[in-house]
Amino acid sequence: MRIGFIGFGEVNKRLAELLKDEDLLTSYEGRSDKTIENIKDAKIKVVSSFKEVAINSDILFSATSPKQALIVAKTYGKYCNGIFIDLNNISPDTADEISRFADNFVDAAIIGGINNSFTLYLSGQNLDKLNFLSNYFPVKAISNNMGDASRLKLMRSIYTKSIAAIFMELFAVSDDFDLTEELLDTISLSEGREFKALAQSRVINTRNNSKRKKEEILEILQYFKDYDLKMVEATLDVLSDL
Amino acid sequence: MRIGFIGFGEVNKRLAELLKDEDLLTSYEGRSDKTIENIKDAKIKVVSSFKEVAINSDILFSATSPKQALIVAKTYGKYCNGIFIDLNNISPDTADEISRFADNFVDAAIIGGINNSFTLYLSGQNLDKLNFLSNYFPVKAISNNMGDASRLKLMRSIYTKSIAAIFMELFAVSDDFDLTEELLDTISLSEGREFKALAQSRVINTRNNSKRKKEEILEILQYFKDYDLKMVEATLDVLSDL
Repeated sequence: MRIGFIGFGEVNKRLAELLKDEDLLTSYEGRSDKTIENIKDAKIKVVSSFKEVAINSDILFSATSPKQALIVAKTYGKYCNGIFIDLNNISPDTADEISRFADNFVDAAIIGGINNSFTLYLSGQNLDKLNFLSNYFPVKAISNNMGDASRLKLMRSIYTKSIAAIFMELFAVSDDFDLTEELLDTISLSEGREFKALAQSRVINTRNNSKRKKEEILEILQYFKDYDLKMVEATLDVLSDL
Repeated sequence: MRIGFIGFGEVNKRLAELLKDEDLLTSYEGRSDKTIENIKDAKIKVVSSFKEVAINSDILFSATSPKQALIVAKTYGKYCNGIFIDLNNISPDTADEISRFADNFVDAAIIGGINNSFTLYLSGQNLDKLNFLSNYFPVKAISNNMGDASRLKLMRSIYTKSIAAIFMELFAVSDDFDLTEELLDTISLSEGREFKALAQSRVINTRNNSKRKKEEILEILQYFKDYDLKMVEATLDVLSDL
């Protein structure tokens, strides 16, 4: 299968590594030194332009940035005769828009860490043509409803962010009583073994990335504005205080 | 060890069952038919009054109801020369008050299901005298700070209630998109295997007991009123809508 990559940051670099037995191609066109270095390391075929990449791919992975996702689709979608897969953290609304520019568009979401264990969630048409990907990494075809993969990622993100907010509040209380370890122990009784490490890393991660997480929560509230998401609004309040 | 029971509902009944190799006693005094039945089934020693139970116990378990907890302590605490253990779901403030009426007071919290697997959390003085209990069920001595066991239970309850509120909100969204199963799957990726069943049973449980849970949340907010518990307040809002 000829697989093209637009963007060669962390995500596409890792996918190229996993898919190395396929026929891979990308371009240096307009790329940064860092990205060109990534491409050289990957030892995959390089063509002169992304237009050429798009034309010659059975599957095209777009993984640049949420902001560029739509521009990439507008510019190269029309040249892509194969399946156009967007891997950026886009909202379901953006996925909708992208689908207007790429005929065989598949909305994808990477859930988990790209360099650890992740599952590639897919939604859209022609998902059967992507079955072969599961030879290389876990893939889950969710539905033919384009946008479901992005929606799922948004909802999961409500969960992880709200949980982090809850722990921030709880730790403020439990630290004062010197009962944080005991609290985590009692919750672990029902929540499984790795839970403690997870809870703590979520709080640290949220503190370290509060600005971005706040923006993400705002987007989530905007997207799900028809729902009365009190916990998510409270999560936003907690993040705003950081 | 002579162990006395005041109250013989679900909690003390189960403890008597687990502690059957010890020297157990209780009384029918003022008990309901149902409770007398429980006591008969347990085949333990019955004396004529709770005063006599209190006088003759090395350890006295009080497990009636949160409302009666203080009255029981006021009435029988003074006759108890052994350790007085309160097993009711009382607030740390009530634990404080009880300690004025029982000299050797130990604040206890059962975490988990009394009829499944639970751990008995203990805080207060003389906890070493209760070490033998761990021959019969898991016991955790938290600290010598009376009230820590109740506080821990309150904090854990913030977690379980907030989580339930988050899931109620999330399911409202994910049901609409027919993505609830997939959402739980993606969260399970990081949260462990039994997580799905746990999340669902929490929501059902919260819906079935919303009034009680709302009252508990109000108590929690009252007790931790010096903290800015936005998520807990939002949880209360969610429960108020049920």
